[in-house]
Amino acid sequence: MEDKILLAHGSGGKLYRRLVNEVFLPAFQNPVLAKLEDQANLTVPKGNIAFTTDSYVVNPLFFPGGDIGKLAVCGTVNDLAVGGAKPLYLSVGFIIEEGFSLSSLRDIVNSMKKAAEEAGVEIVTGDTKVVEKGLADGLYINTAGIGVTREGINLSSTNAQPGDLILLSGTIGDHGIAVMAAREGLTVMSPVLSDVAPLNGMISDLIDAAPGVRVMRDPTRGGVATTLNELAAASRVSMKIYETEIPVREEVASVCEIFGFDPLYVANEGKILAVVPKDQADDALRALRQHRYGRNAAIIGEVTAGNPGKVYLETAIGGSRVIDMMAGEQLPRIC
Amino acid sequence: MEDKILLAHGSGGKLYRRLVNEVFLPAFQNPVLAKLEDQANLTVPKGNIAFTTDSYVVNPLFFPGGDIGKLAVCGTVNDLAVGGAKPLYLSVGFIIEEGFSLSSLRDIVNSMKKAAEEAGVEIVTGDTKVVEKGLADGLYINTAGIGVTREGINLSSTNAQPGDLILLSGTIGDHGIAVMAAREGLTVMSPVLSDVAPLNGMISDLIDAAPGVRVMRDPTRGGVATTLNELAAASRVSMKIYETEIPVREEVASVCEIFGFDPLYVANEGKILAVVPKDQADDALRALRQHRYGRNAAIIGEVTAGNPGKVYLETAIGGSRVIDMMAGEQLPRIC
Ligand SMILES: Nc1ncnc2c1ncn2[C@@H]1O[C@H](COP(=O)(O)OP(=O)(O)OP(=O)(O)O)[C@@H](O)[C@H]1O
Ligand SMILES: Nc1ncnc2c1ncn2[C@@H]1O[C@H](COP(=O)(O)OP(=O)(O)OP(=O)(O)O)[C@@H](O)[C@H]1O
Ligand SMILES: [Mg+2]
Ligand SMILES: [Mg+2]
Ligand SMILES: [Mg+2]
Ligand SMILES: [Mg+2]
Ligand SMILES: [Mg+2]
Ligand SMILES: [Mg+2]
Repeated sequence: MEDKILLAHGSGGKLYRRLVNEVFLPAFQNPVLAKLEDQANLTVPKGNIAFTTDSYVVNPLFFPGGDIGKLAVCGTVNDLAVGGAKPLYLSVGFIIEEGFSLSSLRDIVNSMKKAAEEAGVEIVTGDTKVVEKGLADGLYINTAGIGVTREGINLSSTNAQPGDLILLSGTIGDHGIAVMAAREGLTVMSPVLSDVAPLNGMISDLIDAAPGVRVMRDPTRGGVATTLNELAAASRVSMKIYETEIPVREEVASVCEIFGFDPLYVANEGKILAVVPKDQADDALRALRQHRYGRNAAIIGEVTAGNPGKVYLETAIGGSRVIDMMAGEQLPRIC
Repeated sequence: MEDKILLAHGSGGKLYRRLVNEVFLPAFQNPVLAKLEDQANLTVPKGNIAFTTDSYVVNPLFFPGGDIGKLAVCGTVNDLAVGGAKPLYLSVGFIIEEGFSLSSLRDIVNSMKKAAEEAGVEIVTGDTKVVEKGLADGLYINTAGIGVTREGINLSSTNAQPGDLILLSGTIGDHGIAVMAAREGLTVMSPVLSDVAPLNGMISDLIDAAPGVRVMRDPTRGGVATTLNELAAASRVSMKIYETEIPVREEVASVCEIFGFDPLYVANEGKILAVVPKDQADDALRALRQHRYGRNAAIIGEVTAGNPGKVYLETAIGGSRVIDMMAGEQLPRIC
């Protein structure tokens, strides 16, 4: 096969079939996809289903700790998992720029395969389009995901109640800073790795340990600050978080300082925020910390009454300030 | 709101929320989407489900008879319907170029809303990313779709049997030629309209009338010729189609002649091919013709034994030639 993607690879003809048969099928291999029908025919266990989608336009495509392929699987898996669903099946849509390297495509596809394996999901249907040189930035990926809803839990962003505690599963800003550093060609002593990871296993452990959990979110674009603002508004409560309790890597903090970013607004791709009833918070924290992706988990604050929608940060020096939703664009094309 | 899309509209912060709340939610409105959770929680009737995806990169975004929004709904609805599923829910992912006109975005979203209404599907989850000026061509859309599989039918591209008849639901090449003409700024006497339409209603009527139908396909990229080649290969049969029986609009035929296209390879977005047992073919044809999208339906050929994978065209002047799968790219960015 050519070593570059041609416009003809998107035509639906012979080259397209070869691309599907030689690159996508062998990586994603499963009997449903292999039929190459117009749609995947799936059996879902009895119950309700969850459905979500994200497109990925991260720049650069490869960054320390991951690449767009891993991101495209994990991001969608995590959006299913935070809703309490068990992720089962993904679709994938590629939009590829003419001239893109076939070996980079293979690397990305391979990375999707590995992430899907770890998450226990199957890529069962796909699509591939090619656009002229210059009209995309290498490639863009969309994934959509289907999961089955776990019974007996009640998760909703409207559920947070005064007295609940707010848990964060680890350090913030790792993904955003890793991507930014790679984009700007920053050479730092200890490079920051993206935290991109499939969190469905950890989330499942958390639910087992704290079945009363009110709501979970993955603080992606807009970071922890934006996500907490959304939750506070949806639940008509206020929130108080403690600066000293929020885990931030030193390297992340220093890059943020240099560039004038606030880590609270920087995107994460391997973290969750969870609001948990006070009496289950210790169990929840223990469950998170026992998981490889939650080792640095912490209780970072609490849900409070009054001033619905407001989020307050108690600073290290004892002050308190309002943390608003992100206003402009801090870091574009981060996911 | 600004009248142009800014990078900050993709940041996940305030402007993003406004875009979602003011543009997408009001158009797609439904209680599931309105919750703005990370995932849509859905109830599916008992049975198996079908899942499919397509990305849409058509150029230009607006063309006679439709636009990228209508296409993005109909294309995915049709991929579910040809598999015998009742389409229920769609996801939508937008990748928008910085600077894109907000009023064009509203038009596209409105067109999606209308197509979804006609098809009887709901857009229940979405995502919006923005890339820098120049790195997309206005916008790209991905949709994924979920449907429930109809019981008691058995559709598969491996099912075609010698003796079966091949039905086509109407004129070929309308979509590809409409888009190409719009792209090239062709001014013709009677402009060709794209056939883009949701076909689930017509397909459901066809199944009622001919429950023994073996396989259906929407002959999109690569056209009727490529689709028949795929079916012939999958079923290990040959096929014979009659040039004189294949409905082609005069305008389409003349544009094809001028540009040296073969309408058999031009994309359709509102047509199906169906392979039907001989004794149900008349009922199937009647059902198609009674539907507004199938008025020009015809029996265009038959499934034959021997030479597995080969498709033959009996020409108007009595010759016979092999119709291969499309080789290069005939018309890029047609869907
Ligand atoms: N990147 C990919 N990864 C996995 N499977 C893919 C990929 N691209 C295409 N496929 C699979 O290849 C088959 C053919 O896809 P194709 O997009 O041609 O079908 P279609 O959607 O019916 O046509 P069109 O895209 O022209 O509407 C499908 O079964 C699809 O799932
Ligand atoms: N174009 C759109 N049409 C309909 N709904 C949309 C659209 N874009 C976003 N949404 C909805 O807005 C809400 C927030 O979407 P958002 O993409 O911010 O969530 P997320 O996927 O969790 O975050 P990220 O994309 O940063 O991973 C979701 O409920 C989503 O369904
Ligand atoms: Mg199809
Ligand atoms: Mg997401
Ligand atoms: Mg497709
Ligand atoms: Mg999310
Ligand atoms: Mg399709
Ligand atoms: Mg999203």
